[in-house]
Parts: sequence; C-alpha cells; structure tokens
Amino acid sequence: MTEAPRDIESLIELMARLPGLGPRSARRAVLMLLKKRAGLMAPLAQAMATVALNARDCRLCGNIGTTDICPICADDRRATGEVCVVENVADLWAMERGRAFKGRYHVLGGTLSALDSVGPEELRIPLLVERVQAEGVTEVILALNATVDGQTTAHYIADALAPTNVQISTLAQGVPIGGELDYLDDGTIGAALRARRRV
Amino acid sequence: MTEAPRDIESLIELMARLPGLGPRSARRAVLMLLKKRAGLMAPLAQAMATVALNARDCRLCGNIGTTDICPICADDRRATGEVCVVENVADLWAMERGRAFKGRYHVLGGTLSALDSVGPEELRIPLLVERVQAEGVTEVILALNATVDGQTTAHYIADALAPTNVQISTLAQGVPIGGELDYLDDGTIGAALRARRRV
Repeated sequence: MTEAPRDIESLIELMARLPGLGPRSARRAVLMLLKKRAGLMAPLAQAMATVALNARDCRLCGNIGTTDICPICADDRRATGEVCVVENVADLWAMERGRAFKGRYHVLGGTLSALDSVGPEELRIPLLVERVQAEGVTEVILALNATVDGQTTAHYIADALAPTNVQISTLAQGVPIGGELDYLDDGTIGAALRARRRV
Repeated sequence: MTEAPRDIESLIELMARLPGLGPRSARRAVLMLLKKRAGLMAPLAQAMATVALNARDCRLCGNIGTTDICPICADDRRATGEVCVVENVADLWAMERGRAFKGRYHVLGGTLSALDSVGPEELRIPLLVERVQAEGVTEVILALNATVDGQTTAHYIADALAPTNVQISTLAQGVPIGGELDYLDDGTIGAALRARRRV
C-alpha cells in the first residue's frame, strides 16, 4: 500500500492493530477521520494522548484509572470486607454494570497458564493474600471465567488463601436470565440441575 | 456506562463513532490500548495528532496529503495529459493500487445529489473545467461508481466539458477478472455482452 502519504499510511497500520479492525476497515476508519479532521480526529487524538499519559493501575486492586488509588478502593462505603477477584478490567467493568456488588475488587491481570508460563507472581496473587491479611477481608468472591484456565486459577487461589481462614465463594452457575434451555450447552444445564433450589 | 473513569469513558465514546466499531467493540479496543499504553496507544495518539494537524486537500486535484500540492500532481512524469475523475480519495487509492493509470486525478468529493442538495459547485466540477482549459488536458477518464448518482454526475461532467472538445471516456463495464458468470447480476452480463470483443 503505497498510495497514501507516509504519515497517513503509518496511521492506518497502527489502527489496523486494534481488535475488530483489519487493514481494509482501518483504511475506511482513517478516511472517515480525514473527512472529520476538526470534529473527530483532533479530539480523538487528544483524548487518546490524555489517557495514554494519565492511565495507571490502582496500587491496591489493579483496576485501571487516572489516580494512584482507584475510585472504588478510595470509596469508604465499599469497605464491606468483601473482595471480588476478577481476571481483568473488562470483567470488573462487567461486574460494575451489574450493579449488584458493593465491595472492592482485586484484578489478577490474567489467569495461570503453564503454556504461556504465567505464574502466581505475574497475577498479583501474593498481593491478594497480603490484602486479605491486612484489610480485615471477610469474604473473597472468585468471579473468574468458567474456562479451564479460569477454574485452575480459582483452585490455586483457594489453596493460597486457606491459611487465612477467609470465607471463599464463587459465582453461581446456571441458566442465564432470559436464557432458553434449548440453546444452552449440556454442562450448563447439568450445573443448573445440580444447584436447583426449592421454590 | 459509568464504570470506567471519565477520561477513558470519553475515549470509548469517540472510538465508537468510527465506522466498524460500536460501543462494545470500542470498549474492547480501548481496553487493548490500555494494556499497550507505551507500545500502541501513545504512538497511535501521536500519529493521529500529526495527521490531524498536517493533512490537507491538494489545491489542484483534491487528493489528501500533507503538502499543498499532492505528490501525484507534483510528479512531472504524470503530466500525461490524462485526468482521471474519481468520487473520493478512497477511489483514488483504489485506482493507484491497480497501478494501471499513469496520469493525474481530479477528486470530486462526492456525487451530484438532488436529495442531499449537492450541486456542481460543491463537487469541484468548475475547477475541473478550469484545469482542462489551463493544463492542456487531452483526455478525461470518468472513473465514477456505476450507481445512479455516479452516472448522473458523469453525464453532467460530460456536458460541462463539451465546449472544451476534450476527449471523454469512462471505465469499461464487464466481467471482473476471476468473476463467475453465475454470480454476476443481469445488468453486468448484458453490458459485457454488448461490449464484446473479437478474439
């Protein structure tokens, strides 16, 4: 692709590295930005530079924000003694959208993986053990994904926390709200049946 | 969406205005950028700011570039007397990828449209007539899209150029290279049959 000027070509190449965009859609996005230079391109460049400069991981929980300690950790009303362990910031945002959890978080930054040689140190697990001992945590909720790596990590964390005697729980498995049985996989139906409740 | 800090939320909203990205995929792209702050986010912000600041339309042909006169217009070897008229910069890049045209371009910036009240003045058509008279142009190739608006515009331009006696041509219509007859629409097959060549 040598048809666009060098600067624009570099921009297209960088845009093409975003998830959901390939070379063609990156070119289309850049052409649209070129049409809206003042209205969209300049503000977007500015917003991106601001975030790139200011974003940092919360020193306590690993949530991303623009302050040393994130708004959730800084909020005294959320010092409920409950800590919800999530794989990444996307999962934290998903939990917050649910508006059901009132405690604090601990973002692991991934899952244990022998293949990618990700060990407990890379995952802020020692930090979690420290927090449980130091912050008077009463319950640790493991909100990890229901994948093999996620469940392996959950087991490892439960073992690591055993000496602290903190209560450990995981999210319930079952039929999603609005879910249709016909479209659910067998594992979910089995889990929902085993965890059935009296009405 | 109040789960992310204000700065990051603004960035997600701006990203969601790009073609091909919606609110969900914009959030995913921003999370990925947040993970690669130094490696991708900062360079992307920088590249975007540079282009937003430097990009300008070529004074002669309307091509986008970082100079007052684009590299194609500035290239003496392309002063062949042929001018290829295209709707927009994306079409110019597509022509350049084809590597078949050695002349210069004229970017209209759209097509005539009564509905959107786009007239000849908005489309740099008077400028095209001026260029044909001033630059010793021998042939104008109308490479407009084979849509109703594109063909209306092509007819209007042919009429506007009639007094200059310049030769006017359009791209051939027919079967695309590698195209299968079974998948072609009836109009294309008809056009290819009418324009058939002796072998």
